[in-house]
Amino acid sequence: MSPPDPEALGRRAEAMIAELGAISAEPGRLVRLFLTPEHRRAADLVASWMRAAGLSVSEDALGTVRGRFGSAKQRLLIGSHIDTVIDAGQYDGPLGVIAGILAAEHFARTGADLPLGIDVLAFGDEEGSRFPATLASSLACAGAFKPETLLLKDARGIALGDALKAYGKNPADIPAAAYRRDDAAAYVEVHIEQGPVLESRNQPLGVVSSIIGQTFLLVEIFGEAGHAGTVPMLLRRDAMAGGAEAMLLAERIARDTRGEVVATVGRLTVEPGAANVIPGHVVLMIDMRSESDTARVQFVERFKTGCREIADRRHLGLTITPTREVPTTPCDPGLQQLMGQAIAAVEGEPQRLGSGAGHDGQAMAKLCPIGMLFVRCRGGISHNPMEYASPRDMGLAIVALTKFIERFNRG
Amino acid sequence: MSPPDPEALGRRAEAMIAELGAISAEPGRLVRLFLTPEHRRAADLVASWMRAAGLSVSEDALGTVRGRFGSAKQRLLIGSHIDTVIDAGQYDGPLGVIAGILAAEHFARTGADLPLGIDVLAFGDEEGSRFPATLASSLACAGAFKPETLLLKDARGIALGDALKAYGKNPADIPAAAYRRDDAAAYVEVHIEQGPVLESRNQPLGVVSSIIGQTFLLVEIFGEAGHAGTVPMLLRRDAMAGGAEAMLLAERIARDTRGEVVATVGRLTVEPGAANVIPGHVVLMIDMRSESDTARVQFVERFKTGCREIADRRHLGLTITPTREVPTTPCDPGLQQLMGQAIAAVEGEPQRLGSGAGHDGQAMAKLCPIGMLFVRCRGGISHNPMEYASPRDMGLAIVALTKFIERFNRG
Repeated sequence: MSPPDPEALGRRAEAMIAELGAISAEPGRLVRLFLTPEHRRAADLVASWMRAAGLSVSEDALGTVRGRFGSAKQRLLIGSHIDTVIDAGQYDGPLGVIAGILAAEHFARTGADLPLGIDVLAFGDEEGSRFPATLASSLACAGAFKPETLLLKDARGIALGDALKAYGKNPADIPAAAYRRDDAAAYVEVHIEQGPVLESRNQPLGVVSSIIGQTFLLVEIFGEAGHAGTVPMLLRRDAMAGGAEAMLLAERIARDTRGEVVATVGRLTVEPGAANVIPGHVVLMIDMRSESDTARVQFVERFKTGCREIADRRHLGLTITPTREVPTTPCDPGLQQLMGQAIAAVEGEPQRLGSGAGHDGQAMAKLCPIGMLFVRCRGGISHNPMEYASPRDMGLAIVALTKFIERFNRG
Repeated sequence: MSPPDPEALGRRAEAMIAELGAISAEPGRLVRLFLTPEHRRAADLVASWMRAAGLSVSEDALGTVRGRFGSAKQRLLIGSHIDTVIDAGQYDGPLGVIAGILAAEHFARTGADLPLGIDVLAFGDEEGSRFPATLASSLACAGAFKPETLLLKDARGIALGDALKAYGKNPADIPAAAYRRDDAAAYVEVHIEQGPVLESRNQPLGVVSSIIGQTFLLVEIFGEAGHAGTVPMLLRRDAMAGGAEAMLLAERIARDTRGEVVATVGRLTVEPGAANVIPGHVVLMIDMRSESDTARVQFVERFKTGCREIADRRHLGLTITPTREVPTTPCDPGLQQLMGQAIAAVEGEPQRLGSGAGHDGQAMAKLCPIGMLFVRCRGGISHNPMEYASPRDMGLAIVALTKFIERFNRG
């Protein structure tokens, strides 16, 4: 078997990422949502790459494209996603699918007879940008898809189940998309780091120790709308001022944890929303994450208590509703070790780091052990058109993935 | 001349306010914007009331309905507006128009031969809820309409000039809408207080000392969008967190002035606006008002300095653009005195108070001396469907207005 060349693989990955990145719902920016015409075109392109790599291709009931190599009953699953956030970068997701295809191709081309087969999976619903849920496609593979997810509606009022049918799928086939537990040896994923740690350590690759837990709170604040010129400051019940305090409170508590918890308010609505009317109603979404479930839960409690103090002091109404609660997902220690050895065999010292972003591995962990390999990205920037990983780093990741596959097959 | 009956006048005013309040663009809430079909229907209703009251009716190039009593060259102008904010109350504006009609009717019915004629004016653009400008119709009467206002566009991209034509008007007729300076003896307006002062003093009516000055600032904050899970708190350039600090700064400085300045952030946009993305761009509108021009200007300077400190500390970009700057408009001392005497002749002690809201009087002050009479409103609530003034208080205001007219005619 000739050794894979990281430079050449990196250049191929870069070209494929650009080709996939050109498939968007909007001309000026990258928007590729679950079960849309763009999803269809991206899935078809991925399927054509899989076939060219010598994999046999199928598609499951959630639209996940599967490229199969080898006939062994037990499978090593390698995947990532091809949907994007709105105004996305090109690397988040596609790199992992392409790395899986190019690594599988290496074994397909060389006619390797591996004890374990390889399934490359291209999921379509990791970002949750269309429907108010994420990981529908990987949960189906893990046998953990919840049927009520079919009822969730997108911004236009289209239910996920109806979108699935319009995509040519039959919801009755979803149970058949699940892997049998005995057949799934492990799930591994290559992904850009989406953070600044590897860059700051001057290392191209890292082993993920766990995928961060997450709590999403919907904070609703009720004040009293009033005239901006006539209501004295001390008589106001300004929902926006209360919201501003709540946002700074979240930031302050997060900073106090010295890196253990991050908290973000990325969406906010103000009503009635006229410049000359004191806001009577504010809704904000707060996203809290930590590698430690304990730290996250403590944060949520402290934040809730603080919000109640703010609301009491300002005579505001307050409701806080958790809309997502995902515990931390540890990566398998054995897979971490193999991944670290594979990295060391390619370049650099294997770094351990947590994943601040959610990944399909959170769903796949319900099925089998999971492992993740992170690739350095420029400036830690992600979910942003400026997202970038160098061809060389991507090539190194693909070679490390092949070395991991060899080691994993050796058992 | 039989003395006018406040109880009966108040009941009539209440019924007329309810009839006008039923004219709305939306079924569940009151929305009546400048140059819309609702404006047309409201203007027609007001015109029918004016005719029934014995006034001769015309309409000027901005759609202002004019009800004329008496043939004297010199006119006492009495007016208010019939447009509304979005989700408005029924009293803000209509009360002043109706008070003018019922007061003029008192003299028309009794065949009074006053030295001065009366023009009742129903303006259509006081709130500025449709186009990014206010007082277009009263500025036209005052001869201070700026032609560039015709180019301003509403949210649908329709220019004011085109909306005017669609309303059946000809922009070339606007100069003819202006009163000659010598013909306008004074402008007076009855309006609900829109604040809590009269209620707290247990008085039905008050004399306005001045209409508050106003500065509107557009504050734009530029940070860096990023992934909500992967960017450490200390490396963030979160535009929303900076915006939250700016909002609380405005509140704190306003509170420090102990009632001299009020400041409000009623509108805010966050981009990209996804719950799991750190905001990279926030725009907020801040509305600052004071009876003292000096206090307002000092406030603006202190706020700007504080915002720059916030932006520097957080490594954010910042632009602050004034979008409106209206100095305080004093009410004429002689008219204030007459108005106070008229109130004392009806009920209670005449109160002096500033107007925290803007009014058509700000435009009319460019033409002639102005005076305003305030009516107690429940809870100080305005720009809100809960807005309310009692029929009795409204009746007292109309009688006080007739007494003012008598005194003013006596010279």
